[in-house]
Amino acid sequence: MARFGHYDAVVVGAGFAGLAAAHELLRAGLTVRVLEARSRVGGRVFTRYLPDGTQLDLGGQWIGPTQLNMVELVRRYGIETYPTPGHGAMIVDYGGQRLGDSPQEVLDVFAEIDSMAKQIPVEQPWSAPQAAEWDSRTFASWLADSGCSDVAAKFVDRVISGGLLAGSASETSVLETMFYIASAGGVEPLLGYGGGAQDTRIVGGAQQIANCMASDLPAGTVHLSDPVLRIEHDGSGARLVTRLGEHWASRVVIAVPPMLAGRIQYDPPLPALHEGVFQRMPAGTAMKVHAVYPEPFWRADGLSGVARSTTGVLTETVDNTPPGAPRAVLTAFAYGDEAIMLRRCAPEERRRLVLGQLGDLFGSRALHPDELVEFDWLAEEWTRGCFSGHFIPGGWTAFGAALRKPVGALHWACTETAVRWNGYFDGAVESGRRAAEEIRLALQG
Amino acid sequence: MARFGHYDAVVVGAGFAGLAAAHELLRAGLTVRVLEARSRVGGRVFTRYLPDGTQLDLGGQWIGPTQLNMVELVRRYGIETYPTPGHGAMIVDYGGQRLGDSPQEVLDVFAEIDSMAKQIPVEQPWSAPQAAEWDSRTFASWLADSGCSDVAAKFVDRVISGGLLAGSASETSVLETMFYIASAGGVEPLLGYGGGAQDTRIVGGAQQIANCMASDLPAGTVHLSDPVLRIEHDGSGARLVTRLGEHWASRVVIAVPPMLAGRIQYDPPLPALHEGVFQRMPAGTAMKVHAVYPEPFWRADGLSGVARSTTGVLTETVDNTPPGAPRAVLTAFAYGDEAIMLRRCAPEERRRLVLGQLGDLFGSRALHPDELVEFDWLAEEWTRGCFSGHFIPGGWTAFGAALRKPVGALHWACTETAVRWNGYFDGAVESGRRAAEEIRLALQG
Repeated sequence: MARFGHYDAVVVGAGFAGLAAAHELLRAGLTVRVLEARSRVGGRVFTRYLPDGTQLDLGGQWIGPTQLNMVELVRRYGIETYPTPGHGAMIVDYGGQRLGDSPQEVLDVFAEIDSMAKQIPVEQPWSAPQAAEWDSRTFASWLADSGCSDVAAKFVDRVISGGLLAGSASETSVLETMFYIASAGGVEPLLGYGGGAQDTRIVGGAQQIANCMASDLPAGTVHLSDPVLRIEHDGSGARLVTRLGEHWASRVVIAVPPMLAGRIQYDPPLPALHEGVFQRMPAGTAMKVHAVYPEPFWRADGLSGVARSTTGVLTETVDNTPPGAPRAVLTAFAYGDEAIMLRRCAPEERRRLVLGQLGDLFGSRALHPDELVEFDWLAEEWTRGCFSGHFIPGGWTAFGAALRKPVGALHWACTETAVRWNGYFDGAVESGRRAAEEIRLALQG
Repeated sequence: MARFGHYDAVVVGAGFAGLAAAHELLRAGLTVRVLEARSRVGGRVFTRYLPDGTQLDLGGQWIGPTQLNMVELVRRYGIETYPTPGHGAMIVDYGGQRLGDSPQEVLDVFAEIDSMAKQIPVEQPWSAPQAAEWDSRTFASWLADSGCSDVAAKFVDRVISGGLLAGSASETSVLETMFYIASAGGVEPLLGYGGGAQDTRIVGGAQQIANCMASDLPAGTVHLSDPVLRIEHDGSGARLVTRLGEHWASRVVIAVPPMLAGRIQYDPPLPALHEGVFQRMPAGTAMKVHAVYPEPFWRADGLSGVARSTTGVLTETVDNTPPGAPRAVLTAFAYGDEAIMLRRCAPEERRRLVLGQLGDLFGSRALHPDELVEFDWLAEEWTRGCFSGHFIPGGWTAFGAALRKPVGALHWACTETAVRWNGYFDGAVESGRRAAEEIRLALQG
C-alpha cells in the first residue's frame, strides 16, 4: 500500500465544499491534501460538451445575486457569466388550464410559507417555536390541511418540494421545508430567474468554477480517482485508507453528503447521534433531461422556454441554450413520484413521456429533438441523488444538533450542513470555509 | 489476498436471515459460505452473561406462538423455553395517573388501527386502497388529527411507534405503521405477553437459537470477523472482497438491513431504485437497559414488573429475570425522543433519569440496583440501530417495489424484507428462506 505522508488536514471530496475548505486551510498556512473518488472535481456540478461544442450542465448550473460566495469566486477567477434568457412568456399548466404565471391562490400559499420560514433560526432549526409540531408533520399533510385547492396543493408540492427540494412533499417535514426556504431568504429568491437563484449562468459551464478552484491549488494537492474507504481516528489525528494508499492527517474535513459520509468505515465507529444523521438524510431524486434542437424554436412563438406544470411527468422546463452555441437546449426536470416512475420505465417509454409533454407545452417541433440527454445522479456511485439531501420528518429535532458537530479530528462540510443557501454551491462553499475555520482554530488557537 | 474458492451461494451476514438462507440453500444441495462481520452469529440477538451467570438478552429475546418459523426452530433444536413471567399487576402511568391497564380510549384507537391495518396487502403495501394518502402523512399527524386526547395520542405514540417500531410517530408514515401491524396480525399479537409476541423466552438466552443454527451447518461454512467490503457482480455471478480475502459465488444473499447493505461497495453500482431503498430505511433508536437486583422485590408487591408510561424517559419495563437465575432483572426501554435524549446525556445523568423513573414505578428499592447494564445498538458498527429499519414517509409508494427485487446475482434478505412478522426474528427467517428459494429456482429451475 502506497504511503502518502502526513498533512495538517486531509479533505475528503473535491466538490465545492472540499475545494473551498482546501483553499482556506492553505491560506491559514496549513498543509493539505484533497482526496476525490471521481476522476474529476466539482461533485454535483458536471458540464458535458456535445461533439459540436454545445454545453450541457448535467448538475447544478445557476447562481443568484445573493449567493455571495459564488459571486466572489466568479469574480476572483474572472469567469464569464451571462443572464439566464428571460425574454418571452412563461407557461403554467395549472391542472390542465394554461396560465402565464402562478395564480393568486398559489402566491397566497407562498406568502404563508414565507411568513413561517421567517420563524426558523437557520443555525438551529430545532429551536424554532413550533419545531416539534412542524417536524412531526409532512409538508404534504400541511398542504392537504391548508385549505388551498387540490391543484394549488399539487402545484406547491411539485414546484417547492420538487423544484427546490428535489423530492416530494410526502418525504420532508414542514420544518425541513421551512428551513430550506429560510436558508435562501424566501420563496421568491429560490424560484426567481432575474434576481433569484436562477439569475446567472456560467459561460462554458458551471464546472469551470470548480476547475478553476482546483487549478488554483498547489500542484498535486488533489488526488483524483482515490475513494476513501476507511478512516481510523482519535482526538489527535487520523489515518485514511484509500483505494490507492494511506494518508495521515491531524484533522479531516469530510466534504461529502451525510448519506455518503456514512458509507465510509470509521474506526472507532462514529457516535450514535452522528450515525442518526447519516441514516436520516436521503438525497433528492431529481431527473434533469436535456432536449437538444437545431434552434430555439419556442422563442419565435414568444415563449421563454420556462414552463411549470401540475400535470404530466415534467414539473419544469427552462431554455438552457448557451450563448453562441451551435444548437438550442430545452432542459426539463422531473421530481418525486414522477421521477421515480420515469426511472422504472424502459428508456423508449421514458423518452415518449418526456417528449410528449414537451410537445404539449411547446408544440410539435419539440417532439423531435436531435438528441435527448439524460444523466441519473441517483445511479452515480459517488453522489447517489440530486440536488441535495434533506432531513426526514423528525430528523432535525432528534439529530440536528449533531449535523455539524466535529468528532475528535473529524469535521463536517457539504451543502447539507450550510446555514445560508443550503443545497446550493454557495452553501457548499460556506460549509467548507466553516470547517476550515474550525480546524484553524483547533490547530492554531 | 487470500482466495477462498467458488460457491453456488455466498450469504452476507450470519443473523437469523443469513443462517436460515444458508440452511435452505444447503438443503437444496448447493454449496454455501456465510460471511459475517462480527466475531459471533445472531445479528441483533446477543446474549451476555454476568459473572454470576445471570443472563441478559441485550437484543431481541421473545417469541410468540404465531411466529411459526421460530416455534419450529426451537422445536428442531430442542431448545428449552419458558413463559414470560405473567403474575402480578401491570402499571400504566397515564399522564401521571396510575392505571392497571390501557384505558378504553386507547383501546378504541388500537381498534381503529387494527381495522386500518386489515386494509394493507402485506406483500405490496403500496397497493393498499389509501396507500398514497397514508404514506404522505406521519403517524404523528394521524394521531394529532384522530380526535383522541393528548395523553392517548402520547400513549399510542410511545407504545406503538416506540415500543413496536422503536422510533417515534414523527418518523414513520401511517402506511408503514399499518403495514408493520398487519405483518404481525394486529396490535394485540404485537403488544401481548401471554399469546403475543412476548409470550415465550429462551432458557439460556435467545442467541442460543442462532448458535444452534450455525453449529448445524457444515464446519467452516461461517466465516466470522470477515466483513464484506465490495461486491463485483453481473448476471452470472459475483466476486466478494472481504477484509480477509475474496470469494466467488453464482448467487449472493445480502442478509443485512438495507441501510447496511447500502454501505457495501457494488461494482457496478446498484440501480437507482434499490439505492432509493437503502437511503430511506433508517434503523430504530431503541435503548434497552437492564437493572440487576438481588431479588425480584416487585413481585412481593404484587407487581408483574410490566409498566407502560407516557411520562419520563422510559416507555416500558418488564421483568426479565431468567428462571433459576441468581439475581433478578428489570429491563427498561426508551424510544424516539427520549432515547435520543438519553444518548445525549452524560452516563451519570442517564443513570439518574432511568433509575429515578424505576423508583417512581416500583419504589425506592429500584433506585439501587447491583448493576445497570446498557448496550447501544445505534453505536454498533455492524447494526447501527434496533429493533429494525422502517421506510420513511413516502418510501413505500416510491421505492417499495425494489425492496425484495433481485439485481442480477444479488438477492435480498433480512427482517426488513419480511411479509409476516416484519422486524422480528421470525420475519428474518422467512426472508432468508424466501431468498434461498429464489436462488434455488434460478440455479435449478
